[in-house]
Amino acid sequence: MPAFHTYKNPALATDLVVFGYQDKALSVLLLNRKEAPFKNGWTLPGAFVGLEETLAEACRRILDTKLGLRSIYLEQLYTFDTPNRDPRGRVISVAHFALVSQGKLTAVAGKMANDVRWFPVTDIPVLGFDHRQILSAAQERLRAKILYQPVGFELLDENFTMPELQDLYECILGHSIDRRNFRRKILDAGFVELTGEKKEGLQNRPADYYNFNKKLLPQHFHLNL
Amino acid sequence: MPAFHTYKNPALATDLVVFGYQDKALSVLLLNRKEAPFKNGWTLPGAFVGLEETLAEACRRILDTKLGLRSIYLEQLYTFDTPNRDPRGRVISVAHFALVSQGKLTAVAGKMANDVRWFPVTDIPVLGFDHRQILSAAQERLRAKILYQPVGFELLDENFTMPELQDLYECILGHSIDRRNFRRKILDAGFVELTGEKKEGLQNRPADYYNFNKKLLPQHFHLNL
Repeated sequence: MPAFHTYKNPALATDLVVFGYQDKALSVLLLNRKEAPFKNGWTLPGAFVGLEETLAEACRRILDTKLGLRSIYLEQLYTFDTPNRDPRGRVISVAHFALVSQGKLTAVAGKMANDVRWFPVTDIPVLGFDHRQILSAAQERLRAKILYQPVGFELLDENFTMPELQDLYECILGHSIDRRNFRRKILDAGFVELTGEKKEGLQNRPADYYNFNKKLLPQHFHLNL
Repeated sequence: MPAFHTYKNPALATDLVVFGYQDKALSVLLLNRKEAPFKNGWTLPGAFVGLEETLAEACRRILDTKLGLRSIYLEQLYTFDTPNRDPRGRVISVAHFALVSQGKLTAVAGKMANDVRWFPVTDIPVLGFDHRQILSAAQERLRAKILYQPVGFELLDENFTMPELQDLYECILGHSIDRRNFRRKILDAGFVELTGEKKEGLQNRPADYYNFNKKLLPQHFHLNL
């Protein structure tokens, strides 16, 4: 403990909500723990924060060594401090969330876990610690954020059709959206553009591919969906 | 240090951005430090977090003992962890922000400070630590939040006129708003109501007093101001 103050420090950890999206389903990456507490139970991936690393570095370390995931979107969520949230002692967790297009990357369990698996957010097992609460906070943040920041594109492949983008929004927001209104509001917001390519479908007529263009992003937008 | 893990813990602190509003000016409460580091310099009020207290309890302790403020709006802002943000060693700060109607309360310096004073956000002195960065993050949060949550009312007296409410929004957003549009959008949002009383002015005709009614608050709103 540093000598410059007389408080005992709570332990400091970070827990990660990694959202993935594939086949019209929003999922979250969970670890099955090899060790107590919650041995053989499912939790969010997490770790104690080292004295020499930043919070973001601790998160990248978890993503890299525990999950085999690199270069994905990462954002600080909230700091959780309910007493007794960890049965081992006082641990404060600066939770983060990450977004990944599941098609792009495969998660791999590090040596600390029995298993690592994507669970659809609609079918989450019992979670250890206060991780259900952390997950709920992350879902709420994602629902709010997708309306005013282009975070949704982190979950998609680079090129996507308008119906694919709408599926993502409906999945995150949890309600259906009128097709024409959705199309109009997204195009009005102005940050997607036609790629010129089309997706060939078996049953439907070919759908235009769009991509997200950061340069077109307005300073402020709010999608009223 | 708890025995259950082998990491050395960074020290954990909280710093508080207390916003006040009076006479058409948004202000922030700063302490003049009695001791090093930044002796005789201005900083946000803050404290180390005790092993037995929650973050919110640590904040309430600061508000109570260092500032003499009770029962004011408090919200977690963000956790700051830049290395060397504190010259004494590794300290991670879970910053919070608080909102107060300056007319309601008087801040009093505790024994740890030379002085405590409101500074208009447009005229902030050099701040110690990374407190300029924390203040900027709090201003940005307040600007965003006032459009979709009724936090502005925490800064006002219970009864206010429409011009007074508009002054507050213009002050926080940093730009002027068309008077009729503002009135229409606030009334459309539906969470203020006429009190039936009027403010008697010297020069103008009496203005209607409104108050904020939580019961009228819609589940979601977004003011496009």
